[in-house]
Amino acid sequence: MMQSKTPSESRTVMTDLVLPSETNPLNNLFGGDLLARMDRAGSIAARRHSRRVVVTASVNHVAFNRSIPLGSVVTIEANVSRAFKSSMEIIIDVWIEDRENGHRTKANEAIYTFVAVDDMGKPTPVPSLTPETDLEKERFVAALRRKQLSLVLAGKMKPSEATELKAIFMEE
Amino acid sequence: MMQSKTPSESRTVMTDLVLPSETNPLNNLFGGDLLARMDRAGSIAARRHSRRVVVTASVNHVAFNRSIPLGSVVTIEANVSRAFKSSMEIIIDVWIEDRENGHRTKANEAIYTFVAVDDMGKPTPVPSLTPETDLEKERFVAALRRKQLSLVLAGKMKPSEATELKAIFMEE
Amino acid sequence: MMQSKTPSESRTVMTDLVLPSETNPLNNLFGGDLLARMDRAGSIAARRHSRRVVVTASVNHVAFNRSIPLGSVVTIEANVSRAFKSSMEIIIDVWIEDRENGHRTKANEAIYTFVAVDDMGKPTPVPSLTPETDLEKERFVAALRRKQLSLVLAGKMKPSEATELKAIFMEE
Amino acid sequence: MMQSKTPSESRTVMTDLVLPSETNPLNNLFGGDLLARMDRAGSIAARRHSRRVVVTASVNHVAFNRSIPLGSVVTIEANVSRAFKSSMEIIIDVWIEDRENGHRTKANEAIYTFVAVDDMGKPTPVPSLTPETDLEKERFVAALRRKQLSLVLAGKMKPSEATELKAIFMEE
Amino acid sequence: MMQSKTPSESRTVMTDLVLPSETNPLNNLFGGDLLARMDRAGSIAARRHSRRVVVTASVNHVAFNRSIPLGSVVTIEANVSRAFKSSMEIIIDVWIEDRENGHRTKANEAIYTFVAVDDMGKPTPVPSLTPETDLEKERFVAALRRKQLSLVLAGKMKPSEATELKAIFMEE
Amino acid sequence: MMQSKTPSESRTVMTDLVLPSETNPLNNLFGGDLLARMDRAGSIAARRHSRRVVVTASVNHVAFNRSIPLGSVVTIEANVSRAFKSSMEIIIDVWIEDRENGHRTKANEAIYTFVAVDDMGKPTPVPSLTPETDLEKERFVAALRRKQLSLVLAGKMKPSEATELKAIFMEE
Repeated sequence: MMQSKTPSESRTVMTDLVLPSETNPLNNLFGGDLLARMDRAGSIAARRHSRRVVVTASVNHVAFNRSIPLGSVVTIEANVSRAFKSSMEIIIDVWIEDRENGHRTKANEAIYTFVAVDDMGKPTPVPSLTPETDLEKERFVAALRRKQLSLVLAGKMKPSEATELKAIFMEE
Repeated sequence: MMQSKTPSESRTVMTDLVLPSETNPLNNLFGGDLLARMDRAGSIAARRHSRRVVVTASVNHVAFNRSIPLGSVVTIEANVSRAFKSSMEIIIDVWIEDRENGHRTKANEAIYTFVAVDDMGKPTPVPSLTPETDLEKERFVAALRRKQLSLVLAGKMKPSEATELKAIFMEE
Repeated sequence: MMQSKTPSESRTVMTDLVLPSETNPLNNLFGGDLLARMDRAGSIAARRHSRRVVVTASVNHVAFNRSIPLGSVVTIEANVSRAFKSSMEIIIDVWIEDRENGHRTKANEAIYTFVAVDDMGKPTPVPSLTPETDLEKERFVAALRRKQLSLVLAGKMKPSEATELKAIFMEE
Repeated sequence: MMQSKTPSESRTVMTDLVLPSETNPLNNLFGGDLLARMDRAGSIAARRHSRRVVVTASVNHVAFNRSIPLGSVVTIEANVSRAFKSSMEIIIDVWIEDRENGHRTKANEAIYTFVAVDDMGKPTPVPSLTPETDLEKERFVAALRRKQLSLVLAGKMKPSEATELKAIFMEE
Repeated sequence: MMQSKTPSESRTVMTDLVLPSETNPLNNLFGGDLLARMDRAGSIAARRHSRRVVVTASVNHVAFNRSIPLGSVVTIEANVSRAFKSSMEIIIDVWIEDRENGHRTKANEAIYTFVAVDDMGKPTPVPSLTPETDLEKERFVAALRRKQLSLVLAGKMKPSEATELKAIFMEE
Repeated sequence: MMQSKTPSESRTVMTDLVLPSETNPLNNLFGGDLLARMDRAGSIAARRHSRRVVVTASVNHVAFNRSIPLGSVVTIEANVSRAFKSSMEIIIDVWIEDRENGHRTKANEAIYTFVAVDDMGKPTPVPSLTPETDLEKERFVAALRRKQLSLVLAGKMKPSEATELKAIFMEE
């Protein structure tokens, strides 16, 4: 049986500049380029967790809260938030930092799902995740809720079975 | 008051090849590059609907169902599914076509949200959408459900007020 | 025998933005980048007409009438204008559209020739073309004239045999 | 009055590798990428001849005779073949060389036209060209023929006035 | 007076994949692309140390010990090794990791020098560096030797004054 | 035995524009992009000298003396300065030219080392170099000094055996 791993074992940090070829006409980082960077960072984290070839299964949510200007230093940190049978949910946090005082500001957050595959491209089991910090534990619980929501919306789970999710709408 | 528009008035078709520089080590289109292409197609549809500068607000859902091999002809079609006050939900359908018999296969589907902004970067109103076909009407209704879900998950709407959404979990 | 096809069966539409990485120092779309986009669009139309692998054989004429500014929405439409034994002439029309009022302006026009090849890279027959609209019929006739001109200039056809072409210079 | 220049004064040599990001699915240099490289080389020659900002006016003819494999060393040489009032015809020769024995093979030839512009983007006069070698003289004469042909086809010159061109079709 | 900083305060980690567009014909990461990535990582470290705009002044030494195959996960770590008046020497270590067992192997090492500039592009003072670990102290000393060597080779310092360097050649 | 070659037999000229996608936020050519261009030019010269596959072994020195603005015409000239057993030192000179008066200014100079490899990736002998001009002879001598310095710094040669190098520090 595979040994469980912690998020820190596969944490991936990708620091880079915003280059002119990645900017939109307003001189900010193009949404599409940020999506591509996050996809690469997330796939590395998933690969480190599973030690397998991984493919992007879905992008569950990305909020673009702040525009990221040309020349910014952008730090993307990808962490496995929960591992299922052969899929892994990865939460990706994006910060930009002020050149003069060094303060980091959260610019974006995204949730991607990757699936580990074997040599034939078939899904293959991955180790489970053992969250350690409070934030990791909170994200671990929320990941199940998102998983259920995704199954319900896809018609693959009855709403009544989505226990984690149902609670939200019932509780009042 | 702005005049309502139909989806066909802003429909955007982007047909292109999968180039070697966009492939992953398995010789399929990189998830990140597809996300970037869809972002560009979606932003054009949003811009055509609003005749405004638009920025990506969120990527609500992208399912990567099929890998897209190097050299494929990929057709991306972006349609406004619903317009809110200043935001527009865009549904993006992706097809690949068989070279020999010309059959098109659905490869991916994605939902992006764009916001129209004025010269100061402030959100600005957009025309409403009048769906025409059955598919457009169905997507128009579902868009509201997704909007409510997004507000509930962000803590900006009480679950009890998410009428469209609540029905799903109550109905049994 | 292969069945003739109409231009609409292989029409290819490629809508995209002008990105910063494609602009010249005057902030307009680089000629070379437009040539590359048109080559891709044209090759897709030729491939759809022939259902074969196609290679660019020549660029017969490209007129750059209007510069295309950064951030423009550019629509490239490629249509087969005439099919010969194994080659296809493709006419490519390029429009830009005004963001505020949505009007489309013709920016460029180009004529490319592609050849269908088999698995060994040898030229292979393609279906003939049946033009339908007036514009398609007019372009169909002119394509033969261009073909003859190309053969004469290459020394592969005697001027006296270039019947379509000769008429132009004789008629006065 | 501007002093005439020779082709060697503006000759431009661009030697480079064929990179993986520029290849088509057959692992040869993409037609579109070669068109873009030739556009850059040609624009440098036109700029050196005129010492002005130049813009691509047209691509008059490009023949793709040989495919150029990944990893090839490609040498592009651009020479002004004739200068008109404010436009310059540039002939671009493309060679690939064999790694083992160093022999160079002609792979493509293209003819581009560039226009010199002033600060307002208006066409501005350029120096005339004085061909020196036999090849330069031959290309100088042929350039006028192409210029006339282009004017006739565009309806800007009567066929009867295209003296250089008419001779071809009359001579038998 | 500016406060001295430690290397860890500006340490920069850039983890990324080797993409197909960055490979040479042997399917390994192109030397030139690695040089570009290291330049970006190094410039971020120099900027974090100085909180200034920085420009690349020189690449003092790069050894390409191991080729880096397509699809590798590459981790680039940039550390300030010594700060001079307005320049900073940055040592850049490059690792690749084995997908299956996770072991990291050193692939390359490079030394770049960046200069901090003010708004007019003039060199401007930077904080000094206080090395902490043994490796940092060792690199701090060697940096002075390299600085002297560079000055001697450029004819800006007499060999007799290059005390650190002279010792090497005198000591036997 | 292989026949010696002169530098002119493998001289490589790469003239190109500075494109927007290669500029830093100050609108000058990115250091990393220049490093990549020089790597390609140098590898072509090394390949022409050896008629072998070559790989970048090291970048020994690059001085960035002048920034190169967007839109510049950049000429990179790569020359073999000395050939050793299976390695070749290449000196790369970079010029930019003034559009209005055509004067060329030296912008950068770099020294790269490439190794010729056989089909198994093993180093393989290369022809020796016979310098002809004064500059070529001067660079030929200095190349040996750099080679010794590199061996000494790497601990692969005793300082006392580095005859060429030792002289510098002894001569006073």
